[in-house]
Amino acid sequence: MNTKPRIVMKFGGTSVADLDRIRTVAQKVKKQVMAGCEVAVVVSAMSGETNRLVGYCNSLAKLYDPQEYDSIVATGEQVTSGLLAIALQELGLKSRSWQGWQIPLKTDHAYGKARIETIESSVLVDSMQNGYVPVIAGFQGISEEGRITTLGRGGSDTSAVALAASLSASRCDIYTDVDGIYTTDPRIVPEARRLEKITYEEMLELASVGAKVLQTRSVELAMKEKVRVQVLSSFVEGPAPMEGELPGSLVVDEEEVMEKEKVTGIAYSRDEAKISVRNVPDRPGVAAAIFVPLAQANVNVDMIVQSSGGDGLTNMVFTTSKTDLARAIQILELERGNIQYGEIVTDDSVVKISVVGIGMRSHAGIAGTMFQTLSERSINVQVISTSEIKVSVLIAAEYTELAVRALHKAYGLDMAQAG
Amino acid sequence: MNTKPRIVMKFGGTSVADLDRIRTVAQKVKKQVMAGCEVAVVVSAMSGETNRLVGYCNSLAKLYDPQEYDSIVATGEQVTSGLLAIALQELGLKSRSWQGWQIPLKTDHAYGKARIETIESSVLVDSMQNGYVPVIAGFQGISEEGRITTLGRGGSDTSAVALAASLSASRCDIYTDVDGIYTTDPRIVPEARRLEKITYEEMLELASVGAKVLQTRSVELAMKEKVRVQVLSSFVEGPAPMEGELPGSLVVDEEEVMEKEKVTGIAYSRDEAKISVRNVPDRPGVAAAIFVPLAQANVNVDMIVQSSGGDGLTNMVFTTSKTDLARAIQILELERGNIQYGEIVTDDSVVKISVVGIGMRSHAGIAGTMFQTLSERSINVQVISTSEIKVSVLIAAEYTELAVRALHKAYGLDMAQAG
Repeated sequence: MNTKPRIVMKFGGTSVADLDRIRTVAQKVKKQVMAGCEVAVVVSAMSGETNRLVGYCNSLAKLYDPQEYDSIVATGEQVTSGLLAIALQELGLKSRSWQGWQIPLKTDHAYGKARIETIESSVLVDSMQNGYVPVIAGFQGISEEGRITTLGRGGSDTSAVALAASLSASRCDIYTDVDGIYTTDPRIVPEARRLEKITYEEMLELASVGAKVLQTRSVELAMKEKVRVQVLSSFVEGPAPMEGELPGSLVVDEEEVMEKEKVTGIAYSRDEAKISVRNVPDRPGVAAAIFVPLAQANVNVDMIVQSSGGDGLTNMVFTTSKTDLARAIQILELERGNIQYGEIVTDDSVVKISVVGIGMRSHAGIAGTMFQTLSERSINVQVISTSEIKVSVLIAAEYTELAVRALHKAYGLDMAQAG
Repeated sequence: MNTKPRIVMKFGGTSVADLDRIRTVAQKVKKQVMAGCEVAVVVSAMSGETNRLVGYCNSLAKLYDPQEYDSIVATGEQVTSGLLAIALQELGLKSRSWQGWQIPLKTDHAYGKARIETIESSVLVDSMQNGYVPVIAGFQGISEEGRITTLGRGGSDTSAVALAASLSASRCDIYTDVDGIYTTDPRIVPEARRLEKITYEEMLELASVGAKVLQTRSVELAMKEKVRVQVLSSFVEGPAPMEGELPGSLVVDEEEVMEKEKVTGIAYSRDEAKISVRNVPDRPGVAAAIFVPLAQANVNVDMIVQSSGGDGLTNMVFTTSKTDLARAIQILELERGNIQYGEIVTDDSVVKISVVGIGMRSHAGIAGTMFQTLSERSINVQVISTSEIKVSVLIAAEYTELAVRALHKAYGLDMAQAG
């Protein structure tokens, strides 16, 4: 009966930073409605607003109550959702705002980083079928106790993907301040190309290694629920955004990507710190002695390499995020008697460079090209880690741009259309 | 079983204007809890916040959707309630915030100026009996449709009084930026005295004629529900605020006031405009011809006087608020054919001075003293209106201070303790 394509449009903080931009967003939504779509919109807080509210909480208490924190910071999205609804009404559309608790969008009770459990989206479907554009406050939900929860920074992306899944939307468009996913950071490599399509798996690797376009959880969710996600800019006046003339990057299932690139992109993350635990007795259980206490203290460990000297001692080298560094050291010092290490050496002037591509599965030699390219520039590789579709190396931070540029060229990504 | 006195404390926008003031408010609440009371707190938005949000709505649309407006502006109180809960927790108290929809505090669906219908305060009672200090976001409720409503500017006073009634609180303390109700504006008359007690009826007359301390509706509600309301300053470090050493003004039932003052206070309102409809045929129905269309256009008319010239024509003089003046003129011009007036003359350089006192009922001569006092200063009275406990006159605005000072002295209010 109803054959209108259904689209979820999500606008991030910079896209709704002030009233003029909110009016521009309303125009974009109207265009999509005029093109014959049923549209549900998800909004973030006006940029700066969440930081202001978080700042209040931090000033009042070092360890603030996360339930109050959630109730406070969720107001940012509440304001934007109401303002956009008004702006849409001014353009002659029927529209209303929805808070997480009104839908309801139910989450667990992990305040501050809650996970969505169910969305009772029938009210939104009714609303759209009655010709309304529902504007949903992103980033928030309601717990079983009836309190407001938030989904963690960047959580509006996850709201949008979850709503798109719940509404069986044909696409979830994430409007942001970049016009898509690039083969690498265009600020470093001007020759970087926008990717028309990228798989969820590749996007996950790119998101988690430093391409901060989409919240990682939103990509995981999109992959699980097979939601087609398009990343595009709110600041580019594109053509009528119908399928076939998409101005952004589409994140899709592997089956939708015909030509599987060996290497899709080069990512880098400066948020790395290296910890070397030196001269540990080389005995079974030493890794557990180091990493179990760190895990218990919620310190995330990423790359790990162990090198034995042959003298009954071994060195354990691993990376963590810069923000976790101090805590990690504190834990290791507390555990010194148990681990029995000689010394700890840290280095936060490091960067992680990753080469990502779903085609790696069927192509050998990707890692070899990486090591050779870096070696030719005399860049020393300190730690290596690999996954099925990624090779990462840790190098000195000063070589970041050199390495990214060299690798981008080496994998043929500079070209107009890589094969 | 539970014999703790129960107090509702309400803090206005200037009292929670920044984090330091929120910390000060938390101290005041703690003091009241330490004195052995069960305390529920009601908060306004941080001062300036509501104006900022209203400004957004006004910029986006001339006639914005009141449902969206309510959802947007209610966030101000939501933020403050969470911040105060955190500040109370930092002082070692158990506390949590409550939004209108969480209690729920149910209102009608007159968005933007909703009226409270019921408060399911049992959750708050449970909370207090479990040792929590509930911090309730003022100014807001929820409609039957499940949408956020607001109670109109100053509505947090009404929230507080309604909660005090629902909780059977022994007192509702309204903390504001003045330390009580005065016999007149101390900026004009330095000899003005703080009133220790004032009746609801007197407070209503004072509130509605320009003493902007309490929202009029909150006083009506307090009178109806017999809630004892105390007005006091959040900026004065008073003694432990237990009965008997109250640093503010108590608004109470007439029976609680032993010495009924003939005149309790002198109020003035600069928000007046005078409209003279001249040379109207002096026939039955002329008043209806003028005032029915005005009422239909929601123009509030206050004082009315009709003077006949004896030549078959009459003049109709009345006042309205300055903001309604343009609309009133527009209506009258539309109705010219029907009213058949000669001309309309307006004057917005007028002020309404009111003498208020519950003792007037049993004392003659109050109005006479007023007219004589003004006459001795050569101040011309343009319009007069009276109620059971009030005499108001309209005079030229330039005489405001002179008239208020003269009347304050004439009624013996300057003295240390008037009888």
